[in-house]
Amino acid sequence: MYKKMIEESVQGNAYSLGRLITFLEDEEKRVQIIKEIEPYTGNAFVLGITGPPGAGKSTLISRLIAHLRELGFTLGLLCVDPTSPFSGGALLGDRLRMEEHSLDPGVFIRSLSAQDRLGGISPTTREAIKLLDAAGKDIIIVESAGVGQSQLDVKRIADTVLVVFVPGMGDSIQMLKAGLMEIADIFVLNMADREGADKTVQELKDAASRYMSAWKPLVVSTVATGNEGIAELYQAVVSHREFLKESGLFDQLRRERSQDQTMELVQELLKKEVNRSLEENAMLQQLLEKAKYGSVDPYSAARQIVEKILRP
Amino acid sequence: MYKKMIEESVQGNAYSLGRLITFLEDEEKRVQIIKEIEPYTGNAFVLGITGPPGAGKSTLISRLIAHLRELGFTLGLLCVDPTSPFSGGALLGDRLRMEEHSLDPGVFIRSLSAQDRLGGISPTTREAIKLLDAAGKDIIIVESAGVGQSQLDVKRIADTVLVVFVPGMGDSIQMLKAGLMEIADIFVLNMADREGADKTVQELKDAASRYMSAWKPLVVSTVATGNEGIAELYQAVVSHREFLKESGLFDQLRRERSQDQTMELVQELLKKEVNRSLEENAMLQQLLEKAKYGSVDPYSAARQIVEKILRP
Repeated sequence: MYKKMIEESVQGNAYSLGRLITFLEDEEKRVQIIKEIEPYTGNAFVLGITGPPGAGKSTLISRLIAHLRELGFTLGLLCVDPTSPFSGGALLGDRLRMEEHSLDPGVFIRSLSAQDRLGGISPTTREAIKLLDAAGKDIIIVESAGVGQSQLDVKRIADTVLVVFVPGMGDSIQMLKAGLMEIADIFVLNMADREGADKTVQELKDAASRYMSAWKPLVVSTVATGNEGIAELYQAVVSHREFLKESGLFDQLRRERSQDQTMELVQELLKKEVNRSLEENAMLQQLLEKAKYGSVDPYSAARQIVEKILRP
Repeated sequence: MYKKMIEESVQGNAYSLGRLITFLEDEEKRVQIIKEIEPYTGNAFVLGITGPPGAGKSTLISRLIAHLRELGFTLGLLCVDPTSPFSGGALLGDRLRMEEHSLDPGVFIRSLSAQDRLGGISPTTREAIKLLDAAGKDIIIVESAGVGQSQLDVKRIADTVLVVFVPGMGDSIQMLKAGLMEIADIFVLNMADREGADKTVQELKDAASRYMSAWKPLVVSTVATGNEGIAELYQAVVSHREFLKESGLFDQLRRERSQDQTMELVQELLKKEVNRSLEENAMLQQLLEKAKYGSVDPYSAARQIVEKILRP
């Protein structure tokens, strides 16, 4: 059904690509696209970028894009934003910072809304990556702007994860608590011209040395506003990519992602089945009401609902 | 089965209470406890506290506990920490800051691990709140220390949510992006003796005024290390609690939470059913393998797995 649009998109038609990404928000359309897109995918390198608010991620990404364009790569940028009733204006500010790339046909930029309550990176993000991959983008950058599971889940869709810090964001205990250290392949200390940068670099290096895995995160200092450290940052990405390829982790990661995605889709389909059953079945509704008003405990109600769904 | 321990805990036995909370990590035991505990619950007030790392939450909570103890309340404190391979030492630092309350029999302090990958506040946290409630604690404070969904999900278990900020954490755009503004009932500007406090207070007030809901968040300035603003903070909590009671939202929130919990348990039980089916059924395993290695697209594999589970 979407075969023609996918083919157009593969051949470089940005309008078809944009429409396909929009279609991903509609689950029925997304399913059709998932079925058609797989054969075209598997070539792009996916770079995840996250970090606390205020670390200058948008400027850093803008500079990195400029550098990668100079090296001749085509790019996709997906910004995963938290759903916020106030976000319209706030996020517009961010997008404006990307304006310098908005007329470049070699860069495709798109904002996506964050995941639903179930958590996890949204199925839309996974498929948008595949669409950009199929459309021939060499490198796809996924910026996770929010606090929330999406920030940590960028690990699950990216080949290399950059976590951006700034000097003086608190001692290392605070950074560890944020849960961001464990997902990083590369630590970026942005605004590295600020006071306290040396101390933070040392803390990041100490943290990196404690990693149990074969890859110890590299630490790169940047001043994105001054365009400093961007080439070094890309060199660190190249080092990590070479590590992934040589260790066989590159293919393994992709297989795990397919498996992950399948299990997520299973959960999603089951959730739909639960909602459909609750809508159609008055007895299940009553059970839920009883739990709500406390006349049945939540576990017993849930157990009975599941029994009715699995063995109707 | 746990009736006796629950009764002991209700009568003030801290050892039984502690053991019961430990049992919550084991799902079978948790189920038994959920069934027994409901009649004893519904009296405690639940205060959620979250905010970015480095905002001084632990010190603030310690001061707030001291104030509430002076007012004669008994307290429970649950610290929901992100699961971190490095966290042992880091989190110990935090717990040490609570040391001043550790010998007070009127304060029960416990750390809980964060939620599983599915997201959402962990079932353990919900039940630990109920156990503390049943044990007669007047006020239960839940500190969400991590970045991640748990930070936002504190809204789903608390009557009043405090979000802690510090001056100069970035402009309001950054704060909005963090997704923390929408869940706050009270904005706490901690470290309010630092430069930029006035500007941040104004930004927080502006943000509060934009809330569409009947309750506009109050803004309270504190200097936790200097024990300043703590009484005012508690007064703001009292105002919010009165608002909840007068508007009828207090009971409505609790009913919604029971319904929420039931639906979460439904998802949890279905997930277990999926895992069990995958373990037992070689055909389902093969489908998952095919998706992993790309010979079936993830959606088709997921659809077939769900069909086999629902209609075996």
